[in-house]
Amino acid sequence: MARKILLINGPNLNLLGTREPEVYGKQTLLDIENAAKSQCISHDAEFDCFQSNHEGMIVDRIHLAKQQQFTAIVINPGAYTHTSIAIRDALAGVAIPFIEVHISNVYQRETFRHHSYLSDIAKGVICGLGTDGYRFAIDFAIKNL
Amino acid sequence: MARKILLINGPNLNLLGTREPEVYGKQTLLDIENAAKSQCISHDAEFDCFQSNHEGMIVDRIHLAKQQQFTAIVINPGAYTHTSIAIRDALAGVAIPFIEVHISNVYQRETFRHHSYLSDIAKGVICGLGTDGYRFAIDFAIKNL
Amino acid sequence: MARKILLINGPNLNLLGTREPEVYGKQTLLDIENAAKSQCISHDAEFDCFQSNHEGMIVDRIHLAKQQQFTAIVINPGAYTHTSIAIRDALAGVAIPFIEVHISNVYQRETFRHHSYLSDIAKGVICGLGTDGYRFAIDFAIKNL
Amino acid sequence: MARKILLINGPNLNLLGTREPEVYGKQTLLDIENAAKSQCISHDAEFDCFQSNHEGMIVDRIHLAKQQQFTAIVINPGAYTHTSIAIRDALAGVAIPFIEVHISNVYQRETFRHHSYLSDIAKGVICGLGTDGYRFAIDFAIKNL
Amino acid sequence: MARKILLINGPNLNLLGTREPEVYGKQTLLDIENAAKSQCISHDAEFDCFQSNHEGMIVDRIHLAKQQQFTAIVINPGAYTHTSIAIRDALAGVAIPFIEVHISNVYQRETFRHHSYLSDIAKGVICGLGTDGYRFAIDFAIKNL
Amino acid sequence: MARKILLINGPNLNLLGTREPEVYGKQTLLDIENAAKSQCISHDAEFDCFQSNHEGMIVDRIHLAKQQQFTAIVINPGAYTHTSIAIRDALAGVAIPFIEVHISNVYQRETFRHHSYLSDIAKGVICGLGTDGYRFAIDFAIKNL
Amino acid sequence: MARKILLINGPNLNLLGTREPEVYGKQTLLDIENAAKSQCISHDAEFDCFQSNHEGMIVDRIHLAKQQQFTAIVINPGAYTHTSIAIRDALAGVAIPFIEVHISNVYQRETFRHHSYLSDIAKGVICGLGTDGYRFAIDFAIKNL
Amino acid sequence: MARKILLINGPNLNLLGTREPEVYGKQTLLDIENAAKSQCISHDAEFDCFQSNHEGMIVDRIHLAKQQQFTAIVINPGAYTHTSIAIRDALAGVAIPFIEVHISNVYQRETFRHHSYLSDIAKGVICGLGTDGYRFAIDFAIKNL
Amino acid sequence: MARKILLINGPNLNLLGTREPEVYGKQTLLDIENAAKSQCISHDAEFDCFQSNHEGMIVDRIHLAKQQQFTAIVINPGAYTHTSIAIRDALAGVAIPFIEVHISNVYQRETFRHHSYLSDIAKGVICGLGTDGYRFAIDFAIKNL
Amino acid sequence: MARKILLINGPNLNLLGTREPEVYGKQTLLDIENAAKSQCISHDAEFDCFQSNHEGMIVDRIHLAKQQQFTAIVINPGAYTHTSIAIRDALAGVAIPFIEVHISNVYQRETFRHHSYLSDIAKGVICGLGTDGYRFAIDFAIKNL
Amino acid sequence: MARKILLINGPNLNLLGTREPEVYGKQTLLDIENAAKSQCISHDAEFDCFQSNHEGMIVDRIHLAKQQQFTAIVINPGAYTHTSIAIRDALAGVAIPFIEVHISNVYQRETFRHHSYLSDIAKGVICGLGTDGYRFAIDFAIKNL
Amino acid sequence: MARKILLINGPNLNLLGTREPEVYGKQTLLDIENAAKSQCISHDAEFDCFQSNHEGMIVDRIHLAKQQQFTAIVINPGAYTHTSIAIRDALAGVAIPFIEVHISNVYQRETFRHHSYLSDIAKGVICGLGTDGYRFAIDFAIKNL
Repeated sequence: MARKILLINGPNLNLLGTREPEVYGKQTLLDIENAAKSQCISHDAEFDCFQSNHEGMIVDRIHLAKQQQFTAIVINPGAYTHTSIAIRDALAGVAIPFIEVHISNVYQRETFRHHSYLSDIAKGVICGLGTDGYRFAIDFAIKNL
Repeated sequence: MARKILLINGPNLNLLGTREPEVYGKQTLLDIENAAKSQCISHDAEFDCFQSNHEGMIVDRIHLAKQQQFTAIVINPGAYTHTSIAIRDALAGVAIPFIEVHISNVYQRETFRHHSYLSDIAKGVICGLGTDGYRFAIDFAIKNL
Repeated sequence: MARKILLINGPNLNLLGTREPEVYGKQTLLDIENAAKSQCISHDAEFDCFQSNHEGMIVDRIHLAKQQQFTAIVINPGAYTHTSIAIRDALAGVAIPFIEVHISNVYQRETFRHHSYLSDIAKGVICGLGTDGYRFAIDFAIKNL
Repeated sequence: MARKILLINGPNLNLLGTREPEVYGKQTLLDIENAAKSQCISHDAEFDCFQSNHEGMIVDRIHLAKQQQFTAIVINPGAYTHTSIAIRDALAGVAIPFIEVHISNVYQRETFRHHSYLSDIAKGVICGLGTDGYRFAIDFAIKNL
Repeated sequence: MARKILLINGPNLNLLGTREPEVYGKQTLLDIENAAKSQCISHDAEFDCFQSNHEGMIVDRIHLAKQQQFTAIVINPGAYTHTSIAIRDALAGVAIPFIEVHISNVYQRETFRHHSYLSDIAKGVICGLGTDGYRFAIDFAIKNL
Repeated sequence: MARKILLINGPNLNLLGTREPEVYGKQTLLDIENAAKSQCISHDAEFDCFQSNHEGMIVDRIHLAKQQQFTAIVINPGAYTHTSIAIRDALAGVAIPFIEVHISNVYQRETFRHHSYLSDIAKGVICGLGTDGYRFAIDFAIKNL
Repeated sequence: MARKILLINGPNLNLLGTREPEVYGKQTLLDIENAAKSQCISHDAEFDCFQSNHEGMIVDRIHLAKQQQFTAIVINPGAYTHTSIAIRDALAGVAIPFIEVHISNVYQRETFRHHSYLSDIAKGVICGLGTDGYRFAIDFAIKNL
Repeated sequence: MARKILLINGPNLNLLGTREPEVYGKQTLLDIENAAKSQCISHDAEFDCFQSNHEGMIVDRIHLAKQQQFTAIVINPGAYTHTSIAIRDALAGVAIPFIEVHISNVYQRETFRHHSYLSDIAKGVICGLGTDGYRFAIDFAIKNL
Repeated sequence: MARKILLINGPNLNLLGTREPEVYGKQTLLDIENAAKSQCISHDAEFDCFQSNHEGMIVDRIHLAKQQQFTAIVINPGAYTHTSIAIRDALAGVAIPFIEVHISNVYQRETFRHHSYLSDIAKGVICGLGTDGYRFAIDFAIKNL
Repeated sequence: MARKILLINGPNLNLLGTREPEVYGKQTLLDIENAAKSQCISHDAEFDCFQSNHEGMIVDRIHLAKQQQFTAIVINPGAYTHTSIAIRDALAGVAIPFIEVHISNVYQRETFRHHSYLSDIAKGVICGLGTDGYRFAIDFAIKNL
Repeated sequence: MARKILLINGPNLNLLGTREPEVYGKQTLLDIENAAKSQCISHDAEFDCFQSNHEGMIVDRIHLAKQQQFTAIVINPGAYTHTSIAIRDALAGVAIPFIEVHISNVYQRETFRHHSYLSDIAKGVICGLGTDGYRFAIDFAIKNL
Repeated sequence: MARKILLINGPNLNLLGTREPEVYGKQTLLDIENAAKSQCISHDAEFDCFQSNHEGMIVDRIHLAKQQQFTAIVINPGAYTHTSIAIRDALAGVAIPFIEVHISNVYQRETFRHHSYLSDIAKGVICGLGTDGYRFAIDFAIKNL
């Protein structure tokens, strides 16, 4: 069965490239999504992406992913990393393996960013490697999930 | 005045019957809502039900319940049990007595599920009794609230 | 095999109906035990009940229940909920499924009442629904345990 | 450049004037918004206001404020004060100075209301001074931000 | 109505005079009880006393005190000070005012002796004044309770 | 009865205008006191002010305020905010409503500045709005206390 | 050698009889001091008393007590109970045995009043017995210290 | 003087051999007691044993051991390990050296089993070595206590 | 200047491929080191690798890396992640940018593995992606460091 | 297959017999090792022993034990008990069953000695029984592992 | 510019030489001050000293030091080390570099003496070296501040 | 007997003068050791010094110091200050008095550097006074130990 990968970005990541570029880099979200798409296509994997500032919509999108038979999710949950059990439950509920990505090194930031509600049910976690983190996660998903 | 009971289910409970059946049982949300409806009707109580993955929509629905003069709410807040002060404030704000229901025994799960932002303002709490919990809560609401 | 249900009430519950009726209601312990008995008989289940202020006697009674082949226990452990690992171990030791009942909503009371040594090994927990909690627990036990 | 001030109210504040008036006073949200508007106009400042029970919509509105070149935000985040890192990130992301207002004295309420995810990045905080808090915040914003 | 005072001593206090006299003094429990009796009689107050190493028996004795119309209890709960919610509930249930006495200064001992489950519902607490503490407590009970 | 407002400033606030002006601004304490005086006079309210580095003297001054029939206190307790229960007790003892003001945003500073022994008995709290905080507090006191 | 007893009262206790009489009773500080004096004189013990709202003055007074050869101190340190290590060190430094007295039951009040910097070096502690606490402490000091 | 050794087993240990044999092994309590007896007799030491589910009875038995001049106690306090200060005080009060034994490795079980109220006053502690733990403890007692 | 990358593996990683393969995979350390070497060579980067079970030797190796002018370090510190401040200080002292890699998802393991003494000074962290984590880290180092 | 037992002693245990004999007894490490050797030989078990002050060397020795096909390890990890996850991982990695021994009663010493990184993966733990602890551990290993 | 050094001693240090000499040594405060004076004079540095039991007076003295252009402060804050944020703020406010000295080793005393409100803004800290600590601090101040 | 002083420097201190000079100063370790040697020689004290990045080697060196009859140790344990109980035990085991020195002010650095495993058994502690700290420690050792 063909790989089918969904890239989800959480709240405020639509600001990428405009917001605190010294922390998050200069790439826009569109740049990232396009690069991810190309990476998938070049490996014969299907791809879709989604960004929302709404916790509930991210939950809805994850549910839909199950029906659409995605084989892996790459998710940067942004601030919901630290506050959303609903997204955790959605990911556990659909049982699609996922990789958690953070562009910045969360351990260099406020203490409340050091805990994630997702990490212990994730396949793996990448942080601090900028937008390369997405590339590595998709590479892993294409080859292993 | 006639009893008027609102059943609210929170995030991911739309997956019931499909997700981790060993934890949540085989009944679908529709099964539960239909059973609750029958239970109310047979006791001459009005009934409505609502499910959403969106914290804000649940807040909105609770506000509406006040205008619609519901006399009791039975709520399974799902993951928002542990993270939503907004839903707590909505329930306190409309001052409709409510019963908190959890299908699974939350005390057998992750530590973060042991705390509820709702329990101390609820009329009562039922957990671990599967979908019978809804039946008991509605029974209580019909007879006491 | 016929259902055989044991109702255990812990310390101070012999005062029911006389002590803080605004918290615990007007029913006496005898009222509760009689109602439970009737409920069981009407469903062809055997029934016995027991109250003690002594932790050790409750442990003894649980051990005896095993020999007497009770199929379910409904227990309101009172203050021992929060301090007795011995009762926990007794219930785990005899491996009879049990439901934990509290008449009042423990989450509206002192912080030390928010933790139970029994909940995570119980089938389920009911609190705050007054003496109806016993009725629901027995109903559940008759139908499921 | 003309001052341009945005007033944001979070979840349940649409109930103002109807809910727990002894805590929140008798003024409705409309009263507050109209007073704020008059205050701004009388100082030649532009004004807009927004209320939502949805965390994601508040995030969206803050993003929009950047494009609309608001110079200051006065925000009463309601329950999201204590649970939303997403709103914090939105405010930090758009880099518009803001003042946090609470109508009631949060320190007289539940412990979980004593922590705010916004205060350390706010310009300042006002609590307990009723709806006068909005007036002071707007006064400050007009004169200083 | 005549004063009627009950003196309760908890676990291990039967060892008084024999156990660690440098901590607890040389008086035996009988000495203390006799002195208390004389003190009550000389003020026309009725008196009874009780010692047990059994938590449940102390609960039972407190219940009985209600029926016997005692007007005050002086209690040195010994080790149950720190572990017994059942005794707390018994004292609260019978609603007889009580004074908590400790012979030694509990604050000079292990940390776990610094917390009492009774103090916040006691009329008052005396510790470290040796067996004079009983005398002061009875003096207070005779004159005020 | 005429309004009578007392402005109290705690330790180190005599250094204002000289000490860390980037945190506390360039105004001296005399500037602040004069502005407050003018604000009160223009609203027909009596005014007095007091500054001390001595906890005991602040307690004494609050006691005196009771005898002098002040109707409100505006207090910036400086470092004593975080360490003085004596000042708390003095304010509670005289039962004069008071507003707590901090010039800087205490939430941007050391963690030990995030807790105040006064806030939960204050009418309200203002922080981070510079010396405007005093103006708002006096405005509130004149109109409401 | 004759007994020589010093009674020290800490901050805000000069307000006794005027402040929160439901908590602290109707007796004034002068009433208490006079009663203590009479009690000492009738037992041929010398007596002096002191009240201050100033931590440093209480330290000074304790030092002086050493030179004046007081044999015991009865101290109600008020709010400094919970915040003053300096008073603790003064008492330890002069090595005069002392008894700690609180008029109200501190365990029924705010959590920060549950810890005392003095109790573990005191001879004993009495709380909640109103102004009788002073009488018992002086009685003990006369007979034992 | 001849060695005289008392073996005490706490709550639920009467179930040994029947309850969770994968945790506690197949030996019954009688097996253990008989083996201990033989071990003592073969070394010319006197022996007695006791089991109770009642905290108070264990306290009583320890007191009696003093009168009977036992020279050592081997105790498996079961659940009371973690909750009973009364048993601790009894052991400290009689001043008979004792060894604490647990059949299972308590560190592989619930966190609340990691703390013991007895270990710091015990001679030593053995856990996880099954019923051999009793043998080693008695061996040690015979040779050293 | 040419890239020069040092791969360091900490304690027990010499067991890779033999120890708990379901957690750490089937590849040996030599496999990993050879793959890393090939990856570097194919990008014209120099490479060296080192494994030790000795904290001090890892510190020494890091110091040497400074003299050898390595431009980046990829380190899997094994158990020292959670206990070694010395390795942290060595990495900070030589100021060579480094990436922290864990083969397994540390968040699915014991709580003490959730904290790292290195993460907040690392460039980034990868965990749970098996030995691909090394590949991604080296890829990042070659392209960015 | 013949039993093959390895005795490992950690840092500072080479000082045994010279250092704090009131805590650790008068036997030297050599005495202990010789006794252990005799005990093994007399039961036809092979034996080797090792002491090091170096964490890494203990890790290395444990790895070697796997190759040498030891069937059980008796280890007194000394101070590394409380700080070394590397030794824990080594023991888990080689999967040789081991018993943890402490000569002194660690619960009578500093709080940081109450936690062990090894106990929950040990077969069992013995502490406080002096050098007899080694004898019991070897006895157990010979008979059970 | 000439060095100008101020020596400040906090509460109870006037008792030096009389109080607990085994902890604080036999030198009086005057001895220390004279030695410090000689040390300064012999290095052509000006010197003044101050002792007070009053927190507020120490704050006042520090403020004055700014006007008097002292170049360094050596301070032993006694008990205020652990409770006074006001003294911290005074030292930070005048921005005179200071060294914190404790005669005894605070880490061998009560836990509450392990935290200092001054250390993180001090130039350095010396403790446990007796009155030599003052000499070293002044030596450092003369040569470096 | 002649003084004989050992200077021990822990991990990463070999980098002194090269690593973060703004924190640790410009002096190399050799400079420090030479200065310490001269200081000792000029006071007729013997001297040796040692630096290692290996915890075990530092333990070994301390053991050796006992045999070599050193009379005092001056130790800067670097990162092992916060993690090594083995070094603590070595110092306690050899019972040579020692002084703990830190070049930087550890209280201005990460929280994990605020705790030392050595301070409570040290003679005294000096931090933040740069390399002068060594000079003061040796001065103290020569004169007092």
